[in-house]
Amino acid sequence: MRDEIRQQPAALERTLRQEIKNVEKLKKRLASNPPRMIVLAARGTSDNAALFQRYLLEIATGIPVSLAAPSIFTLYGGTLRCQDALFVAISQSGESTDTNLVLERAKEQGALTIGITNEADSTLAKLAEHTFLVRAGREKSVAATKTYTGQLLMGYLLAYALGAKIKIDDLKRLPEWAAASLKLENEIRERATPYRYMRHTVVVGRGLNYANAYEFALKMMETCYVVAERFSSADFLHGPIAMVESAFPVFLFGPGGVTWPSIHGMCERLEQLKADTLLITDASNKDAAAKRTIRIPAKLRHSGPLPEDVYTPIPYIIPAQLFAASLAEEKGLDADQPRTLTKVTRTL
Amino acid sequence: MRDEIRQQPAALERTLRQEIKNVEKLKKRLASNPPRMIVLAARGTSDNAALFQRYLLEIATGIPVSLAAPSIFTLYGGTLRCQDALFVAISQSGESTDTNLVLERAKEQGALTIGITNEADSTLAKLAEHTFLVRAGREKSVAATKTYTGQLLMGYLLAYALGAKIKIDDLKRLPEWAAASLKLENEIRERATPYRYMRHTVVVGRGLNYANAYEFALKMMETCYVVAERFSSADFLHGPIAMVESAFPVFLFGPGGVTWPSIHGMCERLEQLKADTLLITDASNKDAAAKRTIRIPAKLRHSGPLPEDVYTPIPYIIPAQLFAASLAEEKGLDADQPRTLTKVTRTL
Repeated sequence: MRDEIRQQPAALERTLRQEIKNVEKLKKRLASNPPRMIVLAARGTSDNAALFQRYLLEIATGIPVSLAAPSIFTLYGGTLRCQDALFVAISQSGESTDTNLVLERAKEQGALTIGITNEADSTLAKLAEHTFLVRAGREKSVAATKTYTGQLLMGYLLAYALGAKIKIDDLKRLPEWAAASLKLENEIRERATPYRYMRHTVVVGRGLNYANAYEFALKMMETCYVVAERFSSADFLHGPIAMVESAFPVFLFGPGGVTWPSIHGMCERLEQLKADTLLITDASNKDAAAKRTIRIPAKLRHSGPLPEDVYTPIPYIIPAQLFAASLAEEKGLDADQPRTLTKVTRTL
Repeated sequence: MRDEIRQQPAALERTLRQEIKNVEKLKKRLASNPPRMIVLAARGTSDNAALFQRYLLEIATGIPVSLAAPSIFTLYGGTLRCQDALFVAISQSGESTDTNLVLERAKEQGALTIGITNEADSTLAKLAEHTFLVRAGREKSVAATKTYTGQLLMGYLLAYALGAKIKIDDLKRLPEWAAASLKLENEIRERATPYRYMRHTVVVGRGLNYANAYEFALKMMETCYVVAERFSSADFLHGPIAMVESAFPVFLFGPGGVTWPSIHGMCERLEQLKADTLLITDASNKDAAAKRTIRIPAKLRHSGPLPEDVYTPIPYIIPAQLFAASLAEEKGLDADQPRTLTKVTRTL
C-alpha cells in the first residue's frame, strides 16, 4: 500500500500523457451532441471517485448527475428511460458484476456508455463504447490508493471532454502537487501514533472534498478496522453531531475556497464539544481552529474560472492514505491484505 | 418520541385521506407532460425518506432520479440545466435553508417544483408550485419518526401521480400494517436491554429498505449516541466488512422479495465472522439465519405488479424506531431532546 501511494505522481503523469488523445476524441463527439444527464455507477473506492466526479461535473458543466443504485437494475430488473444520457461505470478491475450490468442495460436503452478502469482487457473495457484507462499499473494492495487518484484525474478529463473550462496545463501540475504531499510521509507516521487505540471516528468533508471524507473513512475501515463514519459538515449537524463527546476523534478536510467557512464553523463547534480534531488544510491557512493540523505543502493555484478548491482533492487525499497506512502499521495490521477481503469483489 | 411513534397509524390514515385530491390533480397535470428526470433535495431524516423515494420512483416509473448535492447551489453558486426536470424538496419544518435554495434555483431554471412538508405555513410550502402536506401533527421530539413515515407515504403518492401502478387500496392498508408493528413495543423493550453498552454498530439494508438502514442508524446516533454506520449489503462487502470481529453488532432489514438472497447471504457471512446479528424480517421467513430476529406481524401482501417488498419500509422502520427509543431509555438518555441538537437545523 505504501509503495503504491508513492507511485501516484508517476501514475498520474503517465495517465494524463497517454489518455489525452482519447479524451480529445470524445470531446469532439460530445460537442455536437451533449448529454442531458449523466449517471455514474461504481462500488467501494471507485464509488467514492464517482462521488467526486458528481460534484465536479455538476459544478463545471451544469449537467445533472446521478449516482446509480445498481440494485434497481440487478435485483429489481428495472430499466430507466435514458435516451440522451451518458452512463459511466468506474471499476479498478473492470470486473464488478453489478456496475457492468448497469452499463449493459443503459446501452440497450440507447445511452452513451463510458468505462473507466485500470485493466485494458477487462469486461468493462470491452463493454463500454468509450474506455478510459487509469494507467496506474497493477494494484496489488487490497486497499486502493493509486487507482483512486487516477479515477479523480479521469473526472477532470471527463469534465474537459464535456466542455468544462479545465485547462490541461493545470492538470499537468497535479503530479508535482501529489509529490509535494508525499513529503509529509514521516510527519504523518508520527501523527498516527496517538490514534493506536481509536475504535471509532467521523471524517468530515464538503463539496469537492466530500468524496475524500468517504475515501479516508473507507481506508480506515479496511486497513485499521476503525468504525469510521463520514459526513458533509451540513449533514453532520442534522443529527449525528449528538454522538460527539469529549475526546471524540474527528478528521476534517479544510481547503481554502467556498467550503472553508462551513468547515471552519464545524471546527469551532467541535472545539466547544472538546472533540479531538485533526484538520487537513492549506499551508497558508491562518484560521485553522483545530487541535491538530496537517498542512498541504503545495500552493494549489490555478488560472481558470473554476472554484478555488477545484484541484485540491488529489493532493488532499494523499496524507489521508498515508495516515491509514501508518495507523495500520502502528496497530500491527497488514494493510495490503485486510482480513475478510479480496481484491476483486463481485456483488449483485 | 414514543408517543409520536404510536401516532403513526392515525397520521398515515389522515395524510392519505386529506391529500389524495391534491395528488389526483398533480397526476392529471403530469400525464400530459411527464418529467424526464427527478431531483430530490433534503437533509437529515427527510434525506433518508428521499433515498427511499429515489428507489421507489426509479423502480416504479423508470424516470432517472438524482439526490441533490445542495452545496453545489449554496456554496459553489452552480446552476443545473433542468428543463423538463421535476425538483422535490422534503423538509419536516419547511425551513431548511439549503434545500429551499435548491428549489428556488430550480424554479428559476424552469423546473417543476414540489414541496413535501409537515408545516402548511412554512417557507417551503409558499415556495413550491405544488405542496403536499405530511399531516402528522406538530412533531415535538427532536428525533423525527412520524414525519419520516409520512414522507415515505408521500413517496408512494408521488409515484402514483407519475403514473406508477400503485393501488390506492393497497396504500389504505398501510395504517393497519403500521399498527401491527406497534404491537412489538414490549418485545422490543426487552430486546434493547443487552445493547446498553454498545458503542458502535452497522445497519444493513438493501433496495427499498436501504433508506431504513440510514434512518435506523440516524435514530441510534441522535438518541443513543451510538456510532452507527449504514451500508447496503453490496457496499458492505466492498471494504467495510473488514471491521467485523467476534460480537460486532450488526442490524439487518430482511423482508421477503428480491433483496432477500443478498441479505440472507450477508447474515451467513456475518455468522461465520461470529458477529452479533439482529434481523428484522417477515413472520413467515423460515431461512432467517441470524442470532436474533424481530418478526413483522402483518402479512404485507399486495395485488399489483410492483415488487413483493414495495410496502415493507413503513412497517419495517417502526420496530427500529421503538428500538432506538428503548435503548435511549435503557441508557438513561432523553430521546426527545438529545444533546447538541435543536429541532430545526439551518445549514448552507
